[in-house]
Parts: sequence; structure tokens; C-alpha cells
Amino acid sequence: SLPTIGLIPGDGIGHEVIPAARRILETVLPGIPLVDLDAGFATFERTGTALPPSTVQVLRDQCQGALFGAVSSPIHKVAGYSSPIVQLRKELDLYANVRPVVNKKAFNASGEQVGCDLVIVRENTECLYVKQERLETDANGESIAFATRQISQRASRRITETALRLAQQRAAARTSGTSLLTVVHKSNVLSVTDGLFRETARAVFAAAGSPTAVKIEDQLVDSMVYRLFRAPDSVDVVVAPNLYGDILSDAAAALAGSLGLVPSANVGPSFVMGEPVHGSAPDIAGKGVANPVAAIRSAGMLLAHLGYADEATRIDQAVETVMARGIATPDVPGGKASTNDVTSAVVAALQA
Amino acid sequence: SLPTIGLIPGDGIGHEVIPAARRILETVLPGIPLVDLDAGFATFERTGTALPPSTVQVLRDQCQGALFGAVSSPIHKVAGYSSPIVQLRKELDLYANVRPVVNKKAFNASGEQVGCDLVIVRENTECLYVKQERLETDANGESIAFATRQISQRASRRITETALRLAQQRAAARTSGTSLLTVVHKSNVLSVTDGLFRETARAVFAAAGSPTAVKIEDQLVDSMVYRLFRAPDSVDVVVAPNLYGDILSDAAAALAGSLGLVPSANVGPSFVMGEPVHGSAPDIAGKGVANPVAAIRSAGMLLAHLGYADEATRIDQAVETVMARGIATPDVPGGKASTNDVTSAVVAALQA
Ligand SMILES: CC(C)[C@H](C(=O)O)[C@@H](O)C(=O)O
Ligand SMILES: CC(C)[C@H](C(=O)O)[C@@H](O)C(=O)O
Repeated sequence: SLPTIGLIPGDGIGHEVIPAARRILETVLPGIPLVDLDAGFATFERTGTALPPSTVQVLRDQCQGALFGAVSSPIHKVAGYSSPIVQLRKELDLYANVRPVVNKKAFNASGEQVGCDLVIVRENTECLYVKQERLETDANGESIAFATRQISQRASRRITETALRLAQQRAAARTSGTSLLTVVHKSNVLSVTDGLFRETARAVFAAAGSPTAVKIEDQLVDSMVYRLFRAPDSVDVVVAPNLYGDILSDAAAALAGSLGLVPSANVGPSFVMGEPVHGSAPDIAGKGVANPVAAIRSAGMLLAHLGYADEATRIDQAVETVMARGIATPDVPGGKASTNDVTSAVVAALQA
Repeated sequence: SLPTIGLIPGDGIGHEVIPAARRILETVLPGIPLVDLDAGFATFERTGTALPPSTVQVLRDQCQGALFGAVSSPIHKVAGYSSPIVQLRKELDLYANVRPVVNKKAFNASGEQVGCDLVIVRENTECLYVKQERLETDANGESIAFATRQISQRASRRITETALRLAQQRAAARTSGTSLLTVVHKSNVLSVTDGLFRETARAVFAAAGSPTAVKIEDQLVDSMVYRLFRAPDSVDVVVAPNLYGDILSDAAAALAGSLGLVPSANVGPSFVMGEPVHGSAPDIAGKGVANPVAAIRSAGMLLAHLGYADEATRIDQAVETVMARGIATPDVPGGKASTNDVTSAVVAALQA
């Protein structure tokens, strides 16, 4: 029987791209059970909580996967508000955030079209995202704030295991038979926390018998960003603690041509949640021009993780076909189509 | 009388680019007193400390400024070792790290040559760089590490004051009469620490009478990296906490064409230290091909901060002349010259 999928539009353009992804899911798996669920800042304003317990309960009890749109988290502190996406990742133990960026036409910072085919594997549960913060007063009566950054052997191990598995799959799928795993850290400054991340990653590689198909290397987070733009074609699988992964995946998204094209999957031991990398984009919300491709691709990643590899491939190919025809929303250079135009074109390509 | 400058080559190519910068200093200010000082990993291996107390004492007692090369900090934990550059910034209270990137030929990630003229103003004393870390054991006997991130009102205020001053100077120097100050944070997740940074920045702007010449705006660190590559021409003055600033300045350096071109100044209330943004580059050290431009430009920034604006301008123009002639080291696309070739060409341009 088909898996049940929770649909959580969230805020802003989430309400445009999740309905688009719904059409795609219903096209490739007719009759797939879909459940509409609430979360986000608007939900918070209406109900006093950004992630209603009922949403989590339905996801746990009835769903095998979910698609999340975007949230408009306020940048100023709002009493009682907490980012529902960060909370969902923790509550459902979605410890790996997998963010692939493939663009044959990606430019490096020298203006050369070198292309890229990489994936950021971001730890999704700890680092500064444990959100343990406190405010104190210093000797002069001024504020001084502290946050805790947590890096555990357990979380570092399982994220590296995910990344290594991916690196091995990529090696196996290539004629070269090889792949590259880059471990990102800042252990020249954070020798204890990032040192633990780095050593654990090395230990995972050794425990797997140091597979010769995969080359492992280290890179400091600052120079990794530099490299992503100078030589994106030299990057393959990147594994990183949470915040570095957050930053690196936006950097990688810049290579894709638009944030509106980049999908992700939040993966846990027993649940997977697709999520476009873009935000809620309040500036364009409600105008019908949000790029549905990231959400549609995230639906594809979701299906792939749930064992529907053929359907996932069909979605990817349909998106490719539509993009190759130049049917794109305005965030893509040259794009003039609406959310609906692009979505209908993908549906048509799937039915062709 | 001329200021006394401490020269700290450090490790690797520091020993090539600092002598190059020395020649430039001696050319524009003949007779300037220069003191050679020790620090770095090689110093640590020889003496047991990466930053000898004598180095700090000479800087404090005899110098008005310094030029720092680069250090080879080990990425694995080495008992007793601590990064001398991080320590120097703290000991001399060099709270602002100013990193300008100007490149008329910078490409955006769509392959368009849009140019950039921006400056990253990085807080230089706190954030995760307080290096308060501890290692514990969890319930399963596995390691779990913690680091403290500190954001204070005081440090956030003075770094924003520096950035705002710069933004006002830039506005005044332009025909438009305006500039843009972007405050970078991640307060959608770190509402207490980054919230304090953001609110303090806003308060500094308000306390300065909300100058109409400067537009102030906010940006999340992940989307700031995205923007640096999608629309570098839309970025002007950026103020950021320490680690974000570290990452953003490497991102900006990618726009410059090579890390080997990007200078910085570590600025405190009573001391200034020039420092190329690049590292010690062990792979090319000793080969005579290190790019001296970042160190030479850092010497220029140093002189500007010490009140030698004309000499600083002469250095910048000489570097421009040499670069326009295509005389460059191999890290610059098309470059074939040696460190010495480039340095001699800059000296010749200064004497022309
Ligand atoms: C919305 C925000 C909390 C989130 C994050 O930082 O993880 C977003 O930037 C992302 O990358 O999914
Ligand atoms: C060497 C390292 C400690 C340093 C930093 O992180 O500040 C470097 O990356 C820099 O940007 O100057």
C-alpha cells in the first residue's frame, strides 16, 4: 500500500509550492494518501504555537513521510515562538539533511562554466541548533549572551555514515568508480568540538575499512566556501556540522542558478521529510510566481527515500525536460512563467 | 617621527610575503623602524609556545602597528598549542577585522561580470573564538563536546560603530552620497545571542541619529553567502559576528579572483595589525610563487590606519598598475610571475 504523506505548507510561498508538489505526487502515484497539516508563524499567531502537537502526532501515527514548505521565522525574539522546522527535525529525529546541487551550467567565480554535481550532507540535530542560550549582565551592567554549541560523537558518527554511504553509491554509479568525501570543520579554532567531529568522521571511514573507492579529505569551513565558488567542480560529497551545513548549502544553492531550484531531504531512521532549501519569500508570496521546482524535486527525494526510485527518477526527468524548454519562474535568469505554468508543464511531461 | 612596525612572518608563505611587504614599507617611508618578531607553529615546535611573551611585549612597548603573515595551525589538537593570530587579536584588543574586496571584474554566479566593492567588518574578539570548550562523556560512554559562543553588547556595539563610521565615509566619498550597512546574524535560530547582536547594531544606528546617508538592513548569514554570489554588486558594508565574518570574508575573497589578493586590518583602540586574508599555504611555501599583493595591500591598510593616507593610496595605485599590466603570480588566472617579480614591479611603480 502507498505511504501516507503529510503536507505542511507553512508560511508565504509554502502555500504555493506545496500545492504544486501535491499535483506531482498525485500524478506519479495516483491515490497516494495526503494529509494537510498546520505549522508556521501564521499558525503561531492563530493558535499560540508554531508547531501544534496534533501535527507532530499525525506525522508520527499516520505518516511515513512529509513535505514541508517554508516558515517565516521572525528575526526578533517573539515570546513563545520557536522555529517549527528546527523542532520537527529534532522531534522526528531527522538527523541528516541531504542537499544535492546539480547544475551542468554552474559558473565558478572566474566566470567559467565548469558545472557542479555535489551534495551537502548536513547534521540536522545539534551544533548551535540545540538553542541553549542565556542572557546575563556584565560588570558594567551591559548585556552579554551565551549560546552552547554541542557536537557529539553519536551525531557526528551517524551523519558521516550517511555521507559515506552516499559517497559509495556515487562511486559505484560512475565509470571512474571513485568519489570524494570532504569533512568540513573549523578545528584550527574549535579543537574540542570540531576536533571531535573530524576525528569521528575519520573513525567512521576507518571502521568501514577505508574503502578505496572513496577518497576522504578535510577542509576548514571558511576555505570550503571559497572553494565552492572557485572550483565547484572539485566538490563531491560534503559532510558538515549543522550551522556550517546550513551556510554551505546556501552557497551551493547559489551555484544552482536560483534557491528556487534546490531540494533537500531531512532523513531519520524511520521518517523522511522533503523540504525546499528556499524560505517563505514574503516579498513574492501570493503573486503566483514562486518557483515550484525545489518543492517538486523535494517530493522526488522523498519518494526515493521511501523506496519509489522509479517515480523519483520520472519526476527529476520531467523537471529537466521543462527546464530545458526554458519554462521557468522569474527567479531563474530569463524565466517568465508562473508557478502554475511550470507545475502544469511538469505534469504534462510526466504524462507524455 | 615614523611609527615602529612589528613584522611577524609566522609560517609558510608568511616568510615570503612579509619580506615583500617590508620592501614596500621601506620604499614609501624610507627609514621606517621595523622589528622582526617570532610567532607561529614553527615557533611553537622550537620554543613550546606559538606566541612568545617577548613578541607581545615588543608589540606593546615599542610598536604602533604590525604586519602578520600567516600561521599553520594544526587541525588536530596539539597539547599546549593555541593559534597566535587569535591570541594576538585578543591580547592587543584588535576588535575590528576590516576586510575590503574591490574587483571591477568580479563575476556573479550567473557568469555575469558585475563587479564588487564591498567590505566585511568582522568582530574579532568573541563569538566561538572565546575558545571555551569542554569534553564530556554521555550516558552511553561516548564523547560529547560543548563550546560556548559569546556575544556581548559591548563588542557588538563597538564593531557596529566601526562599520557605521566606514559606511558614512563611503557615503561621503560617493556622488550618490549614500551607502548600505548590512547586519548579518542568524537570529531566527539564535534569538538571544544573534538577537543581541542585531538589536545592538540597530541601537548604534539609532544613537547616531539614524543618518539618512546610510541605509541599514538585516540579512541571515546563510542567505548573505547566497547573495554575495548572486548579487555581489548589491553588497556594500557588512558587519558580522566573528565566525560569520570569517566565513563571509573568504566568500568575498572568492570574488576577488584569488585569496592572494585580499588584505585585512585588525584594528584596536591603540594598535593596528595588517594581515593578508590567505593562510600559510604549505603546498606552495618556499617556491617563490606566493602572491605578495595581499600582504602589500595589508601594509597599505596599516599605514592608512596610522595616518599615512597618501602612502597608502600610493601603494594601492602601484598595485593596480602592476595588476593592470598582467604581472601576477600563478594563483591569479593567467599569472606567471614570481613573488619577487611582482614585488619589484610594485617598487618600480612606486618609484616611477
Ligand atoms: C529557517 C531556518 C531555521 C533553516 C535553518 O537554518 O536550518 C533554514 O535556513 C534551512 O536551511 O532550512
Ligand atoms: C587561522 C584562523 C584562526 C583565522 C580565523 O579563523 O580567524 C583565519 O581563518 C582568518 O580568517 O584570519
